[in-house]
Amino acid sequence: MATSASGADERWTLINENLSEFLNPELIKKIIDEGRNPKIYWGTAVTGRPHCGYFVPAIKIAQFLAAGCDVVILIADIHGFLDNLKAPLELVEQRAIFYQSIIAAILKSVGVDTSKLTFVLGSSYQKTAPYIMDVYKLCSITSEHDAKKAGAEIVKQTDNAPLSGLLYPILQVLDEQYLDVDAQFGGVDQRKLFTAAKDWLPKLGYRERSHLMNPMVPGLHGGKMSSSDPDSKIDLLDPPDVVTKKIKKAIGVPKVVEGNGLLAFVEFVLLPASALVGDRKFHVERERDGLEPLVYTNIAQMNEDYKNDTLTPQLLKQAVTAGLNKLLAPIQAAYQASPEWQEVTLKAYPPPPKKEKKVKNKGTRIPDRTKGAAATAEEPQPEA
Amino acid sequence: MATSASGADERWTLINENLSEFLNPELIKKIIDEGRNPKIYWGTAVTGRPHCGYFVPAIKIAQFLAAGCDVVILIADIHGFLDNLKAPLELVEQRAIFYQSIIAAILKSVGVDTSKLTFVLGSSYQKTAPYIMDVYKLCSITSEHDAKKAGAEIVKQTDNAPLSGLLYPILQVLDEQYLDVDAQFGGVDQRKLFTAAKDWLPKLGYRERSHLMNPMVPGLHGGKMSSSDPDSKIDLLDPPDVVTKKIKKAIGVPKVVEGNGLLAFVEFVLLPASALVGDRKFHVERERDGLEPLVYTNIAQMNEDYKNDTLTPQLLKQAVTAGLNKLLAPIQAAYQASPEWQEVTLKAYPPPPKKEKKVKNKGTRIPDRTKGAAATAEEPQPEA
Repeated sequence: MATSASGADERWTLINENLSEFLNPELIKKIIDEGRNPKIYWGTAVTGRPHCGYFVPAIKIAQFLAAGCDVVILIADIHGFLDNLKAPLELVEQRAIFYQSIIAAILKSVGVDTSKLTFVLGSSYQKTAPYIMDVYKLCSITSEHDAKKAGAEIVKQTDNAPLSGLLYPILQVLDEQYLDVDAQFGGVDQRKLFTAAKDWLPKLGYRERSHLMNPMVPGLHGGKMSSSDPDSKIDLLDPPDVVTKKIKKAIGVPKVVEGNGLLAFVEFVLLPASALVGDRKFHVERERDGLEPLVYTNIAQMNEDYKNDTLTPQLLKQAVTAGLNKLLAPIQAAYQASPEWQEVTLKAYPPPPKKEKKVKNKGTRIPDRTKGAAATAEEPQPEA
Repeated sequence: MATSASGADERWTLINENLSEFLNPELIKKIIDEGRNPKIYWGTAVTGRPHCGYFVPAIKIAQFLAAGCDVVILIADIHGFLDNLKAPLELVEQRAIFYQSIIAAILKSVGVDTSKLTFVLGSSYQKTAPYIMDVYKLCSITSEHDAKKAGAEIVKQTDNAPLSGLLYPILQVLDEQYLDVDAQFGGVDQRKLFTAAKDWLPKLGYRERSHLMNPMVPGLHGGKMSSSDPDSKIDLLDPPDVVTKKIKKAIGVPKVVEGNGLLAFVEFVLLPASALVGDRKFHVERERDGLEPLVYTNIAQMNEDYKNDTLTPQLLKQAVTAGLNKLLAPIQAAYQASPEWQEVTLKAYPPPPKKEKKVKNKGTRIPDRTKGAAATAEEPQPEA
């Protein structure tokens, strides 16, 4: 079990670690200073299978939990359904269960107490009368221009983009009220939406929320890790040999720290994960070279060593592989131990039919729509 | 009681009279030919007090009823509320009752059987889960460009216009499905929205509807009759002397037929209204000049006489005043006979406070928004 922070200063430090930006921190500081527990929400749309990029927000969420925060994870199933109208609702429901299982398993893998974690399905309230009246209201006092601006970095914006892209910022802002939280957490790509939320909610008579932002973290392959490109992603259920192979292929330019996804993964996942279990350390074995291991407790020293090539890309890759596999082991053990989860996985992400190339329409009445025309406002940030 | 059409040809003629355009008439023709009753919907947003301009759609609706159609009038109360967020919901509810009372009275004033007329409040279904899921869906498969195009003539379109303006076409199209109608009726300014509806509903697996359009009819004052300009409107409860005075002030250029609101009122209201009570005739008294009255059964002969000044603006004004007052008399008698309606009127349109100039915020949490920033898609057409 992870150590948990109990003193106000310690809690505050844990909440702030590695954040890129924190809007209205005073709202959360006050709650901490009063010995209460802030309630923070993070949303993710139910789309493709969560990959190792999810570790970046998950570690931050684990830190919130370790700091005694109440955390609400919004499983945006309606968004997932709208993002791929060809998929029947039942598939999205199975995926929503898969998301909850795997996110809970990630958090448990870093030993954090998940008793203060709640999952909420978007469909549980985004179709209710009070919510929709607020959607209508907010649409009436928000200009097209402002809605577009709020979604600028998270929603595809062309004249041919679907109208839903303008609606998503409205929904995401209202979610803060309907999930009854003190703060929303997301990637710094959400910044414009978060500042819009500060502005919009009070216009409806609702209180302004705080916003915590992770930086945009380069993927293990040096770019955005996309769940739609199987070569660029490491699945959370990939066995150790597959992980080893995939990380071997990762870009790792010697001596270059900027945009280095491997170093970023250590900084934003492996180091804080080790801290959560009470031992902030990152080991780089050098047995093959007959040398003592390199042991880091902070990223600055690692970056130095990488720049002067003491820490070579090859050494780093081996160490990240070991660290990642160690994180994945309990997740995969949980998966193996749960026939229910395995069954859900088969239903949520059925293996593609072998011979037939054409994907069948699965029964919805909606015909094909332009692929990729919609992005959701609640996609997990494209980190790691 | 008005005569009602029973034969298929007679019904068809009555449905078609004075229409500017009729999209997919075959859908309605088939229903008529099979001896069934088409169901037609007309929507109006609950905003200012309905004025005499409402006679134009109302006469057409009366003709639908006389032709044995089922007519649904959508009282768009949510739209009314959104259009003026400063007004509390309770006020909008009172206005919705006022709208139903006065529209029913208009229809009864031309002697039509209203047993096949139904009023539906938008709020009765526009906040339900199935409807809102369809709103989300339609927003996902409709581009911003197409939504804008659909609302081009009915929604104010600037970058600073509220987002609701893009949402209204989505709602209005779905209303056809949720009101379970065969056709929607409106002014020809709705044309782009109606063609969008033909295109959008089948994408959701719903059937395509027929669309009936009235022409844009000039107001009695020669322009758009606006309910927000008291000088340009004749209220449906204005007593005869006020009506006389207002029509006296109306523009009536001698010999010019084009854009003549007085002639238009005869063509689209008074002549068809007289036909509904079984005697298509428009009388122009000339007693003062010691001449026989002019009696018209069609607008062509009137236009001719107006062009050659046999029918002078003065004669026409007196005749229109008499005709309008005759239509208003039963409406006002119904109003006088109903203490409930009078009470609702006071609540729905409270007389402005005498001394205080500043209008008070009536209790909603929404602060001022830019006046006139929103137009609704379901405003009655700006005729007569």
